[in-house]
Amino acid sequence: MPYAVGYLGPKGTFTQKAVDALFPDQDAVSYQTIPACIDAVKHGHVKYSVVPLENTLEGTVNLTLDYLIIEKSLKIASELVVPVEQHFMVHPKHKDRWQEMKFVYSHPHALAQCHQFLNNDMRHATAETFASTGAAAKYVSENPDLEIAAIANDQAAKEYNLSIVKANIHDFANNETRFIVLSKNGSEISMDGLVLKGYKTKVMISLPTDHAGALHQVLSAFAWRRINLSKIESRPMKTGLGRYYFIIDIDQKMDDILIPNTIAEIEAIGCHVELLGSYPYYSISK
Amino acid sequence: MPYAVGYLGPKGTFTQKAVDALFPDQDAVSYQTIPACIDAVKHGHVKYSVVPLENTLEGTVNLTLDYLIIEKSLKIASELVVPVEQHFMVHPKHKDRWQEMKFVYSHPHALAQCHQFLNNDMRHATAETFASTGAAAKYVSENPDLEIAAIANDQAAKEYNLSIVKANIHDFANNETRFIVLSKNGSEISMDGLVLKGYKTKVMISLPTDHAGALHQVLSAFAWRRINLSKIESRPMKTGLGRYYFIIDIDQKMDDILIPNTIAEIEAIGCHVELLGSYPYYSISK
Repeated sequence: MPYAVGYLGPKGTFTQKAVDALFPDQDAVSYQTIPACIDAVKHGHVKYSVVPLENTLEGTVNLTLDYLIIEKSLKIASELVVPVEQHFMVHPKHKDRWQEMKFVYSHPHALAQCHQFLNNDMRHATAETFASTGAAAKYVSENPDLEIAAIANDQAAKEYNLSIVKANIHDFANNETRFIVLSKNGSEISMDGLVLKGYKTKVMISLPTDHAGALHQVLSAFAWRRINLSKIESRPMKTGLGRYYFIIDIDQKMDDILIPNTIAEIEAIGCHVELLGSYPYYSISK
Repeated sequence: MPYAVGYLGPKGTFTQKAVDALFPDQDAVSYQTIPACIDAVKHGHVKYSVVPLENTLEGTVNLTLDYLIIEKSLKIASELVVPVEQHFMVHPKHKDRWQEMKFVYSHPHALAQCHQFLNNDMRHATAETFASTGAAAKYVSENPDLEIAAIANDQAAKEYNLSIVKANIHDFANNETRFIVLSKNGSEISMDGLVLKGYKTKVMISLPTDHAGALHQVLSAFAWRRINLSKIESRPMKTGLGRYYFIIDIDQKMDDILIPNTIAEIEAIGCHVELLGSYPYYSISK
């Protein structure tokens, strides 16, 4: 039975690219903000939501992580890494004179990522920022009489019938964005047609305030069991400087003994542990 | 001999408050961006620069940390924590009718931090964002005929001769910002009149790619020596997802044996270690 999946819109963003790869047969519902996407799952308006968590160049999307920390009712069910490929696109009527366009619209990050192209090929044009690459593409499609172009992905070009006149104009070839799928129960979903890269378990740990060596002890509890951690990051508790939540990526699937025992022991020394999810991660096959 | 100290301006920001507390007798030079402040020390235009590193509510200032990671020639010489206290201020001619002001200007974070006040006392007014609290205060002082107010700190009120008509309007009492002092050699500077809270040593570690348990080994090297770590955070290397610099705060001053031996051993297993500084940290006395 088809169901609804929320994503950070509008159409033509990289998040839509992720949602189309993950849920090709479902009904994708666009939300304007990350909190709105997350709330939609929480309130049962959609079964899953897809939001960005991390980018190669920009790092963690703090808004997503901070919201996940307080939304204890939701779990991560899956993760997908999408390559960030930016293209230069115009309305089809301008496609033979694209170099004459006077304005280039895109998200500020996308404009920054295409600095070389803009500087070499479109030096005469003025770059202006839009809230998303998808919104920039939409504006270009709706204003065929203006001499304007957008930097956005192939999905946006298709969605808004624009002509890609110069493909892959991003400076940096290895740029990728990691998206997560949120659900109420976090039960694993298998994704046909995507490349399964492995499994991870994400936990959030807060340390007791009166116990100086607690972080050591936490990490040692994983270390002696040879449970590998692929990432540790801290986010502020917002109750005072120097108090953090530690978000830890464990490089394996939840098991019956090792991870549960580690968590039980960490809790026994006074830490608070929340499981954010134990899930497969995928990449788009090329 | 007096010397120049750079800071993130304009006048009347929280960074100016930090620089005035740290260097009351020196010549403070305002720069418009964090990279410009850092470059000024690097090029010898100023002896020190003061930039924000972390805030209770917003977390790490990624721009500062990312720039420090690539600027290996600079070291942290000191750190100061400043309470973030926001006040409502108007031009003195409006001070008896401040509730009638039609616009409230401030930095977006400051507007967000004073949500309760704006919602209860100034519901009829329109909030508009400025690049900094100091810039908002400056604009209010320069336009006495407009019915406008600013949210900024006491320093801004003094600097621009504005009247504080409602003090401490921030929602959240424990909000603080951590500022760092950068210098070329990182030699410790003692701060009279400030409260010395302790010492820390900040290092940046990158792990070898071919060694899965490296992060464990790094943390164990500190752990068995009972060297306490107060913070671990990761920042993207920007060369591919999943590759991070780990920035670690060691809860003590650099010594002759324990920390150097730990660093030497971590390097022996293939890590790259950069010392970002070993320095005292202060708070403003109240």
